[in-house]
Amino acid sequence: MALIVEKTSSGREYKVKDMSQADFGRLELELAEVEMPGLMACRTEFGPAQPFKGARITGSLHMTIQTAVLIETLTALGAEVRWCSCNIFSTQDHAAAAIARDSAAVFAWKGETLQEYWWCTERALDWGPGGGPDLIVDDGGDATLLIHEGVKAEEIFEKTGQVPDPTSTDNPEFQIVLSIIKEGLQVDPKKYHKMKERLVGVSEETTTGVKRLYQMQESGALLFPAINVNDSVTKSKFDNLYGCRHSLPDGLMRATDVMIAGKVAVICGYGDVGKGCAAAMKTAGARVIVTEIDPICALQAMMEGLQVLTLEDVVSEADIFVTTTGNKDIIMVDHMRKMKNNAIVCNIGHFDNEIDMQGLETFPGVKRITIKPQTDRWVFPDTKSGIIVLAEGRLMNLGCATGHPSFVMSYPFTNQVIAQLELWNEKSSGKYEKKVYVLPKHLDEKVAALHLGKLGAKLTKLTKDI
Amino acid sequence: MALIVEKTSSGREYKVKDMSQADFGRLELELAEVEMPGLMACRTEFGPAQPFKGARITGSLHMTIQTAVLIETLTALGAEVRWCSCNIFSTQDHAAAAIARDSAAVFAWKGETLQEYWWCTERALDWGPGGGPDLIVDDGGDATLLIHEGVKAEEIFEKTGQVPDPTSTDNPEFQIVLSIIKEGLQVDPKKYHKMKERLVGVSEETTTGVKRLYQMQESGALLFPAINVNDSVTKSKFDNLYGCRHSLPDGLMRATDVMIAGKVAVICGYGDVGKGCAAAMKTAGARVIVTEIDPICALQAMMEGLQVLTLEDVVSEADIFVTTTGNKDIIMVDHMRKMKNNAIVCNIGHFDNEIDMQGLETFPGVKRITIKPQTDRWVFPDTKSGIIVLAEGRLMNLGCATGHPSFVMSYPFTNQVIAQLELWNEKSSGKYEKKVYVLPKHLDEKVAALHLGKLGAKLTKLTKDI
Amino acid sequence: MALIVEKTSSGREYKVKDMSQADFGRLELELAEVEMPGLMACRTEFGPAQPFKGARITGSLHMTIQTAVLIETLTALGAEVRWCSCNIFSTQDHAAAAIARDSAAVFAWKGETLQEYWWCTERALDWGPGGGPDLIVDDGGDATLLIHEGVKAEEIFEKTGQVPDPTSTDNPEFQIVLSIIKEGLQVDPKKYHKMKERLVGVSEETTTGVKRLYQMQESGALLFPAINVNDSVTKSKFDNLYGCRHSLPDGLMRATDVMIAGKVAVICGYGDVGKGCAAAMKTAGARVIVTEIDPICALQAMMEGLQVLTLEDVVSEADIFVTTTGNKDIIMVDHMRKMKNNAIVCNIGHFDNEIDMQGLETFPGVKRITIKPQTDRWVFPDTKSGIIVLAEGRLMNLGCATGHPSFVMSYPFTNQVIAQLELWNEKSSGKYEKKVYVLPKHLDEKVAALHLGKLGAKLTKLTKDI
Amino acid sequence: MALIVEKTSSGREYKVKDMSQADFGRLELELAEVEMPGLMACRTEFGPAQPFKGARITGSLHMTIQTAVLIETLTALGAEVRWCSCNIFSTQDHAAAAIARDSAAVFAWKGETLQEYWWCTERALDWGPGGGPDLIVDDGGDATLLIHEGVKAEEIFEKTGQVPDPTSTDNPEFQIVLSIIKEGLQVDPKKYHKMKERLVGVSEETTTGVKRLYQMQESGALLFPAINVNDSVTKSKFDNLYGCRHSLPDGLMRATDVMIAGKVAVICGYGDVGKGCAAAMKTAGARVIVTEIDPICALQAMMEGLQVLTLEDVVSEADIFVTTTGNKDIIMVDHMRKMKNNAIVCNIGHFDNEIDMQGLETFPGVKRITIKPQTDRWVFPDTKSGIIVLAEGRLMNLGCATGHPSFVMSYPFTNQVIAQLELWNEKSSGKYEKKVYVLPKHLDEKVAALHLGKLGAKLTKLTKDI
Repeated sequence: MALIVEKTSSGREYKVKDMSQADFGRLELELAEVEMPGLMACRTEFGPAQPFKGARITGSLHMTIQTAVLIETLTALGAEVRWCSCNIFSTQDHAAAAIARDSAAVFAWKGETLQEYWWCTERALDWGPGGGPDLIVDDGGDATLLIHEGVKAEEIFEKTGQVPDPTSTDNPEFQIVLSIIKEGLQVDPKKYHKMKERLVGVSEETTTGVKRLYQMQESGALLFPAINVNDSVTKSKFDNLYGCRHSLPDGLMRATDVMIAGKVAVICGYGDVGKGCAAAMKTAGARVIVTEIDPICALQAMMEGLQVLTLEDVVSEADIFVTTTGNKDIIMVDHMRKMKNNAIVCNIGHFDNEIDMQGLETFPGVKRITIKPQTDRWVFPDTKSGIIVLAEGRLMNLGCATGHPSFVMSYPFTNQVIAQLELWNEKSSGKYEKKVYVLPKHLDEKVAALHLGKLGAKLTKLTKDI
Repeated sequence: MALIVEKTSSGREYKVKDMSQADFGRLELELAEVEMPGLMACRTEFGPAQPFKGARITGSLHMTIQTAVLIETLTALGAEVRWCSCNIFSTQDHAAAAIARDSAAVFAWKGETLQEYWWCTERALDWGPGGGPDLIVDDGGDATLLIHEGVKAEEIFEKTGQVPDPTSTDNPEFQIVLSIIKEGLQVDPKKYHKMKERLVGVSEETTTGVKRLYQMQESGALLFPAINVNDSVTKSKFDNLYGCRHSLPDGLMRATDVMIAGKVAVICGYGDVGKGCAAAMKTAGARVIVTEIDPICALQAMMEGLQVLTLEDVVSEADIFVTTTGNKDIIMVDHMRKMKNNAIVCNIGHFDNEIDMQGLETFPGVKRITIKPQTDRWVFPDTKSGIIVLAEGRLMNLGCATGHPSFVMSYPFTNQVIAQLELWNEKSSGKYEKKVYVLPKHLDEKVAALHLGKLGAKLTKLTKDI
Repeated sequence: MALIVEKTSSGREYKVKDMSQADFGRLELELAEVEMPGLMACRTEFGPAQPFKGARITGSLHMTIQTAVLIETLTALGAEVRWCSCNIFSTQDHAAAAIARDSAAVFAWKGETLQEYWWCTERALDWGPGGGPDLIVDDGGDATLLIHEGVKAEEIFEKTGQVPDPTSTDNPEFQIVLSIIKEGLQVDPKKYHKMKERLVGVSEETTTGVKRLYQMQESGALLFPAINVNDSVTKSKFDNLYGCRHSLPDGLMRATDVMIAGKVAVICGYGDVGKGCAAAMKTAGARVIVTEIDPICALQAMMEGLQVLTLEDVVSEADIFVTTTGNKDIIMVDHMRKMKNNAIVCNIGHFDNEIDMQGLETFPGVKRITIKPQTDRWVFPDTKSGIIVLAEGRLMNLGCATGHPSFVMSYPFTNQVIAQLELWNEKSSGKYEKKVYVLPKHLDEKVAALHLGKLGAKLTKLTKDI
Repeated sequence: MALIVEKTSSGREYKVKDMSQADFGRLELELAEVEMPGLMACRTEFGPAQPFKGARITGSLHMTIQTAVLIETLTALGAEVRWCSCNIFSTQDHAAAAIARDSAAVFAWKGETLQEYWWCTERALDWGPGGGPDLIVDDGGDATLLIHEGVKAEEIFEKTGQVPDPTSTDNPEFQIVLSIIKEGLQVDPKKYHKMKERLVGVSEETTTGVKRLYQMQESGALLFPAINVNDSVTKSKFDNLYGCRHSLPDGLMRATDVMIAGKVAVICGYGDVGKGCAAAMKTAGARVIVTEIDPICALQAMMEGLQVLTLEDVVSEADIFVTTTGNKDIIMVDHMRKMKNNAIVCNIGHFDNEIDMQGLETFPGVKRITIKPQTDRWVFPDTKSGIIVLAEGRLMNLGCATGHPSFVMSYPFTNQVIAQLELWNEKSSGKYEKKVYVLPKHLDEKVAALHLGKLGAKLTKLTKDI
């Protein structure tokens, strides 16, 4: 797509795939609202006071229907919002269209190139001459990264006059980041400093981003306060476990229509994501085999009747392979070569380096047959045997289906709203330093409580008596 | 669509939605072949002898990817084939296109009107002046019905000169049937008699069609032999149970993206289909309530920890309603009015009269909002509360998803091939009279055995010793 | 025990282990009554009319607490009853004591020798000079067998003067049967003929007995009408499946206290009993492997995510082996020698010839260590490795635990009462010939319905409209 | 029992119920060894070096077969051991006999009075004139408590000459504790001080004891170092969850023989114990209802398809009630009065104050009928309706069955051995102060790893590459 910003009749900027899908997006958004009681409760509780009045929020988080309900909760509380996705395949174009038309500046579409991806990120952060956002909602930490790298480059430039050199790195994605910063420097050598000055804080959605934040905290490089939403119990123990239990079979079915019953499914990693995936496959009638490096998780798998073996033991007999480890180089091209014809290989971890896509793409004589978008059959030249790779090795539930359902996303997104409120309300109190914080347990419990009513649950009350 | 027959370059007739999807259909067909070992084994075992050489086969059965593999198994064994779908929503257009281009005459598309549906059925039966098909593969019995009604009308016409009067019935679908027969009469007053003369027999796929056949057998009206494929164990105990366990959540997810965990799901009927549906909902984390009329099935539900109540007991507290009964008038508009906002209502039984669509459509002031094709929200005027109806009350797994997966369809379709072979091989032997037959147990076991290898199962051998 | 009949103060005969357990038996009987709503409903419905007034009923069926409730239902309806167990290990001594003291003549104790077993059977059939019982409740067919063999021997004796020769057979159990008949002949050469004359019919509980009955029907040898209770749906699809799902883990736990989670359990046979066993092991956290000869059952196992292999494939890696096949020679001593140390071997099928106990007992140098009654460790001399055999290879759920729980036994026993009533009420009508009959579906449904109320189930009513 | 210490022929003290059960205990002990690979690995790894040479270990922990394997692991590593149980119902008498005869001084039997219980505890701590033990293995903290209370009393006595006054407290159990200390004072006014001086540390097994330890740490009252074994992941996430999943149905079956399928089971509390219990009941075919005070746990229950209600909502419709909360006053006599006839009420939490036994026992006119030991039916006078209470409201899995199986107990007991080794090895290093410590993660992982081999699991190795 030509990277030209468009404007709504009201003058709000956007770049989405197809604005005509806005009505469809709105309809699905309305369905999702009913499934996201935590966010709707925030609108009811906080909306009247307009706590975000005057606040600019930039989000970098999968631009889905569920995120749309989050965005409109932020605007309902008074915020101005600019948004981009945090994954090239995860945008739902009808959601992006509805939000762009009705509520916030959106720069996102399904199937961005990496170049386009970072252009979108930069657009979402750019609030014009007055500096950047007051608050960031981040997922994976790319918005936070861009600011930190920008500030670093500006400092070097100020001291040495040197601009960043994209050719100084082998990593093609980081080359793009450096190019963007370089261009920015040439327009305004204080662009990212101004952002940093204005910024009150960030709330981070996921493990990857949280890891980066703690590293920056430790090295003293963190430029603003951060709230770690990922480690709220209502996030990690729900989104990961129950979300993936839902979205793994959903993605498999939409991508391949394959019968899961009777198959052998290998789940690499038995953390929360792996536990959700294994439960889904087992109850659908597959025989599940787990690979693990951690003896405690391995023992949990055994207690559930799952076999724990190495990938090498089962690579040629299994039908479905799912990576969930958060580590890299889990399924290599040499594994893939030994698999059965039409074995399915996919990743549901946040990182896209669990499956050796580069090894596969560069394997001599390999042939790629695209069955449909996000579903490719790769045929090896010697055996004529093919494997089916989903979402090019990226998050298969967002690439091949619609990600986690609204209800389970309502938990972390309610945490997000609460985290953003906390940062904004305390912006002048000095409560939050340039560190990483977790929400207190009572707020975590509040998030859970907001979702129980919709499900018809009734809590028992503890008495004071000891 | 304009009802005009088209022709391939080789002169074969067809009418499909979009021939450009043929390549896509072919790719998915190739995937399905790997998942349908029973059909592929038939090609290997019987193909060389070309047993269907000279046989004309007409099929009226959901024109899906799986059916495409069935059709190409029949042609691989030497048959000429004409095909239509047996449900207005069940055609997969890419499957239809691939078959139309490469293998057989197809008249089918997703979203036919009833008028179009019967036009397609008539086209599939019309083999030109030389009469109709030698064999029929039927699903629900519509092709069989048309011939029987045609023959009946021709007899009356011969005796009395009277042509059928479409206004003589209130049933709009039957009006169409009568119109078609009437038109046929005017062209050739022996059209259906010629079909009947030529016809060797029919193999019937499903409960509904089988019921009709037994009724005709009892009343002496059956005009040709029939093999009941439905009651093969490898059909009824697999397709119904394991197929629906797979395709109910698939349809729900694709249509609504709703989280199943935490919801209350009501399964109306606890036969094989209901058992599969209940298992799927339970393992996905829903609380399942069953409604039943049969005390034995009710007791089975209780033994699995499911509550058995009446629809009235739970109509206002449940989130998902699925009909599986095979009876009519299960969920009436008065039930729907009492449901929670955005309750999901769908049918996975073969009949489309389990949900009172007419009552809903004609409810005063009701508003229909189409979220996307096959997913409608119906809003009641008084409460402003809406319910979500899938696939207009028809088979939701074929309407909203892609039906049962290939592997489980390979069982009944292998039965179909064996049944068709049996009828054709015995066409002159007098083995089959104008009655309904079930395949013998050893053929049923053969079908099962053909699928075990693919799954890696190893059977124990019984010794002769007593 | 000395085989001397004792008498209660009221003069009723009995032979049980310990009459002092009668109070304990009565307490458990009262608990069981609450769990057996079908039997209690029979007392309420039929009791006042005393339909069994004047009827003598002999039962040969595991003398458990549940059977005690059956017996007292029969007496509550007016019958006189004599009872024995149909398995040497299955009597619950407190149940036998309570019934002997309060309600009926009982000849049964846990741990009978085969000699004692047949003595008890003969006692239960002997109603004094006036002939035998009017009705028999049989389980496995031993009471029926004794009468048939007795009549046969009497006929030979009448014609030839020859008495049965116990040494004519190798089967030690049949030697005992012949001895008993021989002794009977010497007292009264028409003893079994008189029984046959009086007998109205038998209702048979289980597969084994039913098989024998159909064989006798086919050969024309059946001497009186029989009702096959086993094939009532409320028997075979409940007792076998849900009963074993409960009683297999119960027996394993009581006998061995072994943790099931994490173990590999091999279930030999995947019929109804096998399905119940596999479900129990799987949900307790074991990995389940099935062995099967039938491809359809094997395919069902695969669809549930279970591996299907041969015993040879897994004999040295599994921890728990359960036979459920109804066939003989399933686990041979050569298998047992290859098992892991302390592998558990047990049988839950009716026959006691699934496990090669004779091969084990006669294996050179094998050492038997009795951990506790019904739990033996057998150590092989070469490996010093031992296996644990439950209940000496007989029904482990009755040998090591208390058999099926009351609620699930209430189904078949209610069928028994209904069958006995049917035979007795029609004794003069000629309705039942010397054939095997199944109860009609409406009675089967009645049995189910009688149990739904206790569980809180509410049935939907079918309307007449078509 | 007369509280007189007996001696083996070798002079070791003991007091057990029946020494003739020692052989039986030994046989079961040998079975358990095969199921406790962690403990056996400790014997192999550490045994040769005899690290506990010269160490006196006192244990206060359920005197079961599994504990017997722990004790003999400690002695195999060189320790001298004295042992008592930590619950009046939890001793397995054959285990106590085998250990008393062969390995250690044991003071324990099933069914102690509270008086006897504390006598046993005091005996286990009394190593003669030279002071007490070097190390304590505690479960619930009673041995630790006795020393702390003893020291406190001795200090008061030294300062004021005052001895403890048992009548100063209402708590009958604490009266006994004070009496024992008082008697001790009169013999040796430095008895507990000497114990304290000698003591190197304690390792505590369970939540209750750990809570007490942290309270003492906070108040500065802790007299020696303590290792919290309870919070090792291989303890809390295995023993609680998988142990109870096994032992709840085991206890229910042995105590009542009741069918679980079809019943409504209420699980009070959805922590790790509650999760295990709920899973067991659900998979056995019960409908499970959870009560909770914590919204996060409640939400987890909902995600598994379980209903969350208050006890009041369901008290009159449920069949089985299980308390798992760790809080008191969960099921009160007013609840019990409203229950269905023969509803089962039991506790599987460590505390015995979850069920209002006092309210029940003192309810006017209530009648207690003991079906068998640990299974009582309590009948209310007005309704004549009874409820069944297991193990007098104490731990039902130890009272009615044999507690957790060996395999799952091998995890915490291996932690115990490692903790004891750590305390002993570091006794002079000053590493451990008078605080509560948790074992490091690598030791936790070691415990898990020691159990994987037995289950046949194969771990993947993580590479160093980042």
